[in-house]
Amino acid sequence: MNHYQPRLADVRFILENVLHAPQRIAELPAFAEVDADLMNQVLEEAGKFVADQIAPLNRVGDEVGAQFNQGQVTLPPGFKEAYQSFWQSGWASLTTATEDGGQALPAVLESVLYEWLSAANQGWTMAPGLLHGAYECIKHHASDALKAQYLTQVGTGEWLATMCLTEPHAGSDLGLVRTKAVPQTDGSYRINGTKIFISGGEHDLSDNIVHLVLARLPDAPAGPKGLSLFLCPKFYADGTRSAVHCERIEEKMGIHASPTCVMRFDDAQAWLIGEVGRGLNAMFVMMNAARLHVALQGVGLLDAAWQKADAYAHERRQMRAPKPVGVKGDATDLIIEHPAMRRILDTQRAWVDGSRVLAYQTGLALDVAKHHPQASQRESAQRWCALITPILKAACTEQGFHGASDCLQVFGGHGYVSEWGIEQNVRDARIAMIYEGTNEIQAIDLLMRKVLADGGAALQAMLDELSTSLQAQAPHEAQVLQMFEQLRAITQEALQVQTRADGNVTLSWIAGDYLRMATLALLAWAWTRIDAAAPTDLARWQAPAQALRAWVLPEFEMRLNMIRAHIKPT
Amino acid sequence: MNHYQPRLADVRFILENVLHAPQRIAELPAFAEVDADLMNQVLEEAGKFVADQIAPLNRVGDEVGAQFNQGQVTLPPGFKEAYQSFWQSGWASLTTATEDGGQALPAVLESVLYEWLSAANQGWTMAPGLLHGAYECIKHHASDALKAQYLTQVGTGEWLATMCLTEPHAGSDLGLVRTKAVPQTDGSYRINGTKIFISGGEHDLSDNIVHLVLARLPDAPAGPKGLSLFLCPKFYADGTRSAVHCERIEEKMGIHASPTCVMRFDDAQAWLIGEVGRGLNAMFVMMNAARLHVALQGVGLLDAAWQKADAYAHERRQMRAPKPVGVKGDATDLIIEHPAMRRILDTQRAWVDGSRVLAYQTGLALDVAKHHPQASQRESAQRWCALITPILKAACTEQGFHGASDCLQVFGGHGYVSEWGIEQNVRDARIAMIYEGTNEIQAIDLLMRKVLADGGAALQAMLDELSTSLQAQAPHEAQVLQMFEQLRAITQEALQVQTRADGNVTLSWIAGDYLRMATLALLAWAWTRIDAAAPTDLARWQAPAQALRAWVLPEFEMRLNMIRAHIKPT
Repeated sequence: MNHYQPRLADVRFILENVLHAPQRIAELPAFAEVDADLMNQVLEEAGKFVADQIAPLNRVGDEVGAQFNQGQVTLPPGFKEAYQSFWQSGWASLTTATEDGGQALPAVLESVLYEWLSAANQGWTMAPGLLHGAYECIKHHASDALKAQYLTQVGTGEWLATMCLTEPHAGSDLGLVRTKAVPQTDGSYRINGTKIFISGGEHDLSDNIVHLVLARLPDAPAGPKGLSLFLCPKFYADGTRSAVHCERIEEKMGIHASPTCVMRFDDAQAWLIGEVGRGLNAMFVMMNAARLHVALQGVGLLDAAWQKADAYAHERRQMRAPKPVGVKGDATDLIIEHPAMRRILDTQRAWVDGSRVLAYQTGLALDVAKHHPQASQRESAQRWCALITPILKAACTEQGFHGASDCLQVFGGHGYVSEWGIEQNVRDARIAMIYEGTNEIQAIDLLMRKVLADGGAALQAMLDELSTSLQAQAPHEAQVLQMFEQLRAITQEALQVQTRADGNVTLSWIAGDYLRMATLALLAWAWTRIDAAAPTDLARWQAPAQALRAWVLPEFEMRLNMIRAHIKPT
Repeated sequence: MNHYQPRLADVRFILENVLHAPQRIAELPAFAEVDADLMNQVLEEAGKFVADQIAPLNRVGDEVGAQFNQGQVTLPPGFKEAYQSFWQSGWASLTTATEDGGQALPAVLESVLYEWLSAANQGWTMAPGLLHGAYECIKHHASDALKAQYLTQVGTGEWLATMCLTEPHAGSDLGLVRTKAVPQTDGSYRINGTKIFISGGEHDLSDNIVHLVLARLPDAPAGPKGLSLFLCPKFYADGTRSAVHCERIEEKMGIHASPTCVMRFDDAQAWLIGEVGRGLNAMFVMMNAARLHVALQGVGLLDAAWQKADAYAHERRQMRAPKPVGVKGDATDLIIEHPAMRRILDTQRAWVDGSRVLAYQTGLALDVAKHHPQASQRESAQRWCALITPILKAACTEQGFHGASDCLQVFGGHGYVSEWGIEQNVRDARIAMIYEGTNEIQAIDLLMRKVLADGGAALQAMLDELSTSLQAQAPHEAQVLQMFEQLRAITQEALQVQTRADGNVTLSWIAGDYLRMATLALLAWAWTRIDAAAPTDLARWQAPAQALRAWVLPEFEMRLNMIRAHIKPT
């Protein structure tokens, strides 16, 4: 089995030639010292780190998995050393502010880093995956006293962090959370309750673990507005152990190296973060970035699966491929010569490349939204992030799983056995369709809250902006313009449906189809950008472009028809 | 976690009300003593056996798995006892001839039995899954001397059997098999070589194991015509151990309880089955039945996943479902009330029910093809089997995996942990898309060999027959007639494409789309049969019927458009 190898040239092409990322970053005063050379150096080093230190641990992570023993959790051999190396080399603090011990680099670089980490070893990557969100949460909402104790350690990754949200009866619906926080006379709180599905709730990677816990004050109202956020570490500043215990870890389909913990809070001392009753707001402020990272897991794992399948298809011979009349050949051909296999590989590559354009564009937009001197630019970037985040999260994680399964198919029976590592990719990819909001919730978020809530204005503005790059006389670009028109039209029809008494019920049935339409329109747009940047004679980019148009985009019209048939008044 | 519970009423409705199976069986003199009551009794007992003895072992099968130790393979606790009970109760010999110790019952009953067994415990079901094929192979091709020693033991299931085909370099392409068989002066052969992916190559379920081995005589020509079939048992008649050794078992994605063995033949004594150079024919004669069983694995595992998800959706509350304006309700609703979840469940049920109609119809056709007194009926049944087998194998196994994954989604995060058993269904289902000929090979088989090779005649005849049951004035039936017309039209276009120099290359790209079109047309037809038999006010059948038309059938037109765009002359 070959380990995942980041391919810098592919990523650079998209960042530099397609998205002109260095020029966009140059517009941001916060990154005055960041130029194309520096970005490239960072990515080159990141690629080496991922290939040398993280990718080789993927198999052992799956086979050995996280081990639970009387409240202690041990991660697989090599995981701790790799994590210590990771944070000490500064990879955990790529976008952390310099005053908090970080490097203050653009978010788009972190996007690439995490895509590669996920591709190389999703089980390991779960550990630092929550760090950035926890850091921002503490930075923006915690008191100075808490910041003094925790901000630098979380910002640099010296201490890892968790998000303790879910409870047995409260999954997608956090308003049902019952964990109690009782105020103490010293200003702290005592927390009691059980949290489940806590990734990295306990482990041996870092000296301390900082838990961010959603809980309810004794007099809090029911529902989401009664939730507050608390910080509760594994070890307090004086070294004493807190009353937070890992009761067990889950057996699960994949990401075996990431301990999914049941955590019991036994009157554990904790401190409020942000305001009482605003716990969800404090956490959700980081949601766009977190969901982008989940989308990138899908992209990474799909690329990992593609890379394995592509290599296998170029070395395995089996049967004679069909040939034009009169063309001779050997009794057997490489698998890549068989159309069904080539179609799988080209199609998955179209998803990887197109998703990268959209995801890196979103990484850039996070930077622009935060740092651009012009308000209009910040607003435009913010709009892009709000609209595209649920789309990317759902579409990339769905493709990460289904596309990896298609790549498994290239191996025949060998794909089903663990030896080649491809079945692990499929299992590891499945969870991303669920966490950080299930893909069904993303679809509702997109249609109901992001698109219809403002009468479609944000969507129209985004499509207007994207259309400026398109020319009606270029056939593929004209196709994208037409898809945009159809997306606008169906959006207007959905707004009409909403005026019906049962409008929201009707629309809930087809929210997923609407998200797919938006996905495909954006993917088509992304590929026109690649077309414009790529030399037209280059098979590297031509083959996936053709696969996209032949095998992926036809779904757009099907979804449109399905929606129309469903919303038609009876 | 609840174990799988066969639901006899659903199956009886399809067998009796939709397919009129008892009347079809009554036309066959071989089953003169089989009436509706007997069929029903057999199925009732089968359901109890599956629920009581096989389903409870599913979890332990996955967790413990098959264990390898120095050439010995031990199956999980309870597996051996369950197997002994299985064959001793006569379930292994349901369709075996009475003179070979069997019950000579119709194949359609065995279809239902194996669907249920797969649903309950696919890992266990792998063991007897090859028995029937081995029995038929020995019965029709082995010498009287071999039959005297092996036929009854394999026919009753007292001894289990394997198919030793695949080698490290020869998977889909069996023509590449290198294992050698050297003739001996006593008429036997000595076999040398290594076989991989041998399901049940070694285990502790039965006292003996009968291996059917594909190998090549020293002077055999290259390719498939040089292959002969041999019988080589684990123990010879005198009790001595043969030189067939299990070198290791594979770690794999699922069906952990089924040992996937690497088998080494070390100059092992064996006997020819059938003629020299006709080894593939001897095995392929059983292929339709074997592929139907693999399709039923898909149906069974999808039903198992559906059953779990449906139960969960009726007991788990999470968030308020959308409601018409003015309708009050609780703060939370059952998951089943959320449209995205209901859509998943209704859609999968549409696949399960529709696939059952097609699969049981195929089980009946196997009986008719073998036993009907009229040649025209036998021919018609044989044509149905030839055409539908690749369709069912590919479509049902694809849906088994993807539909089970959709059902997993209903559980949210709970679906990803092993506790509920649904992630095991997804892992266990994945292999069926690969073995018995990958789904890509099924697509080529359908389009090139089953449809185009006779100029589309068999397909046209089958569609003519199916059309006689349809009425143009009934809207859903008219839709099916239209789909049939489009399938006929695209078949004619494909025949035209074949006349081009690169026609076969062009068609290989879209063979999978053609198979999907055929699948959807047949599924639509199957549901008109259900409609005709079901009371129209019954939500049990109405909801999946609506889901089929709203969410499944629209793919038909998309595939048609994709094919047309692809085959268009450039």
